[in-house]
Amino acid sequence: MRTLKHPVDIVMYLGTILLSTAGVTGTTILSVPNYLRQEEIRQEVSKYQDIANKIIDLAVHGSAQNQTYNRLAYMTDRFGNRIAGSRNLEHAIDYMLARLTEDGLENVHGEDVMVPHWVRGKESAMIIEPRRHPMAILGLGSSIATPSSGIKAEALVVKSFDELHKKASQAKGKIIVYNQDYHGYGTSVKYRRLGATEAAKVGGVASLIRSVTPFSINSPHTGQQDYGSNVTKIPTACITVEDAEMLYRMSNRGEKIVIHLKMSAKNLPPAKSRNTVAEIVGSKYPEQVVLVSGHFDSWDVGEGAMDDGGGAFISWQTLTLIRRLGLRPKRTLRMVLWTAEEQGGVGGRAYYERHKSNLKNMDLVMESDVGTFTPLGLKLTANKQATAVMKEVMKLLKAINASQLSTDGSETDITRWVENGVPGASLLNQNEKYFYFHHTNGDTMTVLDPHQLDLCAAVWAVVSFTVADLCEMLPR
Amino acid sequence: MRTLKHPVDIVMYLGTILLSTAGVTGTTILSVPNYLRQEEIRQEVSKYQDIANKIIDLAVHGSAQNQTYNRLAYMTDRFGNRIAGSRNLEHAIDYMLARLTEDGLENVHGEDVMVPHWVRGKESAMIIEPRRHPMAILGLGSSIATPSSGIKAEALVVKSFDELHKKASQAKGKIIVYNQDYHGYGTSVKYRRLGATEAAKVGGVASLIRSVTPFSINSPHTGQQDYGSNVTKIPTACITVEDAEMLYRMSNRGEKIVIHLKMSAKNLPPAKSRNTVAEIVGSKYPEQVVLVSGHFDSWDVGEGAMDDGGGAFISWQTLTLIRRLGLRPKRTLRMVLWTAEEQGGVGGRAYYERHKSNLKNMDLVMESDVGTFTPLGLKLTANKQATAVMKEVMKLLKAINASQLSTDGSETDITRWVENGVPGASLLNQNEKYFYFHHTNGDTMTVLDPHQLDLCAAVWAVVSFTVADLCEMLPR
Repeated sequence: MRTLKHPVDIVMYLGTILLSTAGVTGTTILSVPNYLRQEEIRQEVSKYQDIANKIIDLAVHGSAQNQTYNRLAYMTDRFGNRIAGSRNLEHAIDYMLARLTEDGLENVHGEDVMVPHWVRGKESAMIIEPRRHPMAILGLGSSIATPSSGIKAEALVVKSFDELHKKASQAKGKIIVYNQDYHGYGTSVKYRRLGATEAAKVGGVASLIRSVTPFSINSPHTGQQDYGSNVTKIPTACITVEDAEMLYRMSNRGEKIVIHLKMSAKNLPPAKSRNTVAEIVGSKYPEQVVLVSGHFDSWDVGEGAMDDGGGAFISWQTLTLIRRLGLRPKRTLRMVLWTAEEQGGVGGRAYYERHKSNLKNMDLVMESDVGTFTPLGLKLTANKQATAVMKEVMKLLKAINASQLSTDGSETDITRWVENGVPGASLLNQNEKYFYFHHTNGDTMTVLDPHQLDLCAAVWAVVSFTVADLCEMLPR
Repeated sequence: MRTLKHPVDIVMYLGTILLSTAGVTGTTILSVPNYLRQEEIRQEVSKYQDIANKIIDLAVHGSAQNQTYNRLAYMTDRFGNRIAGSRNLEHAIDYMLARLTEDGLENVHGEDVMVPHWVRGKESAMIIEPRRHPMAILGLGSSIATPSSGIKAEALVVKSFDELHKKASQAKGKIIVYNQDYHGYGTSVKYRRLGATEAAKVGGVASLIRSVTPFSINSPHTGQQDYGSNVTKIPTACITVEDAEMLYRMSNRGEKIVIHLKMSAKNLPPAKSRNTVAEIVGSKYPEQVVLVSGHFDSWDVGEGAMDDGGGAFISWQTLTLIRRLGLRPKRTLRMVLWTAEEQGGVGGRAYYERHKSNLKNMDLVMESDVGTFTPLGLKLTANKQATAVMKEVMKLLKAINASQLSTDGSETDITRWVENGVPGASLLNQNEKYFYFHHTNGDTMTVLDPHQLDLCAAVWAVVSFTVADLCEMLPR
């Protein structure tokens, strides 16, 4: 139980006695102390307004202005994209470890993780009939290759798994093309993940999946796919919305469609990579941790600037800002840049396995992996009591209009902590166009805005510092 | 002068006598008849509301619903893009001539035009230093090739022609990269058109131009460029906004940039193409013409669905709608699908030269070449009197909210007629995203919407039929 060391605690305690004496019902007895408890939290958190203002000022208007953008631009311009297993990724991690050390951060180190090592190789797809037309494609992560001469086969074009199952008798020996509608990423991504497996089940020899996006300029979007167990592995790639729609029109007209698909992708033995860690060690409870994070790996197209350079670099910037202000919270502020998120949160899972013995000391885990556009606040997964605390914390961000608190704060790399009761948060931001660029060659610095990144870094830093410095850990 | 065949004319005439007799000043004498003239026009045009409603009903809600989209999808799916000089274009013109005849239209024919014949060939560009990075490029129309081994040279990156001129002493032997800001297509397109010429003047060996667009998913935009006379011709291509910005950042950091550019483009001898013509011959003044048009050629990327399949096919649909309603206007309604617009309005120029002897009988020339998104009305270039008539005509479109009339109605292929006094109109539409797709692989049917095309066809048909059927030609 909390000790009565604070005036509000004493008022609360006295109130409880008073109300008990007056014979008020149990419900009311509980609600008044809750009210007082909230008041206590409000008072404690509100004392951080000055620090919050200083963080915002440094990040958004002061000498750290544009720093997140400039650091990220330099890194992406120098190393480009960073797929798990690649030398690019490991060189970029080496670079980061050096920069984090130079930045005066503590316990800078990499933590080894074995990661999948898929290499795209050359790939192409050509419509042969009814008209020769080269398609822009991107093979999907973990896909096998075609034979070196490719696969030339008739296409069966469907709108859904249901339609595929209805037409199962026509599927044997065909290249299955999915022209599924876009009903949001979370709903439609199953076609990318499971399209090859479902196609193989009905005898398809390859699958081509309409890119999972609401908008396209003939832009293929790659991403991970998973072969079901006990199913023949067949090559699989994404095509553009434009080509998927055209193939569907041709199919509806009864035209025979023949496609020639060539892919030389390789699944190599797992490779060694690293989660990248840096800290500001807590002054009072160093074993207790507030974790800020993004993933450092990307797909092998574009530059991985938005997904998830932005999330990674606002996490670095968080520690930079706190350190430059000479602040040291009671608990440890830890930055982790995950590896191999794109292959299914491989770095995050390894980290949990290595550190889960410290579960009770994980105060709050934060990951930004859905864009770093204009921030609106946080998404949070936590119980009522922790949510009440976080509502107060978010008020510190009123000056930059980022005080909203919504639900569903878990992201891929922090999900195991959250499932095990640790409050989890992600960045609520104006990311309406996120899936325009996601996993494409268009994921570059051009998508990002220096001022928006500054605002995101401010949100990340104010929240993580405040929570790491409160008298108590968040309730769970 | 107008004859007194209409009751309003007689009132107008009597009014003039009356006011003259009363000794009213000349100004007043003119203004009252003008008022009466406008009333006369209002009455005459308002009689077309029933016909306008029938056209709209057939186009938007009736059996012609989706026809423009479906016809265009079939044509683009079957032939793909249609650059001047290509067999694709000529095959597609043959197809169109057959369809227009089948459609029951009159005087269906092609009119020969000699057109430029540029072939892209294979092309690539690789940043060699400071980091190997393949760039998405599109050679610009009329560009020469590089030597077969390519051009490997250091880059000079500039933001503007001014900056290039200031840095002229550093330009010799370099590949000049332009990272100009986007200030609207009309302003910024000069970098595409003249970038090679300006680069060559200061000793550049090639030029790479940031695509002229406000938005990009790593999308290069091609287009025509013009070598200045007495200037060395150097190879020139567009690069993406993303790569132009990255190269500019690298340059600002003082990094040495080396690029390897390979282009195998060819300028072949001029080829024979055709403007495609179909008519509904006028019942009373067949020699007088209202012309509706779009261009049928496209660039050699994407499908030329938006630029300018939409404009071409609403023009065809206009004649289809009028014919299906059993209407025949007093004047001839002529559809022209221009060839080789993209090379600088070649088809339009040839057409003017061939038909300019009929200048006095050209009533109104209309071209749609800035998108066929939700229509708002028309852009018009005409004198005050003609504008007053057109204002009344536009009121017929109130039911579909397309009654606006703004200025600047000239488009590339009709410009010579307009310069010589013929009223000219183009389609005012919600084309804010037009330049996202312009001259890219993303110019496909996916950009277009069946309902929007129906509305555009209705605007085109109501305006052209009404003007072609009024008692008199538009004043000029």
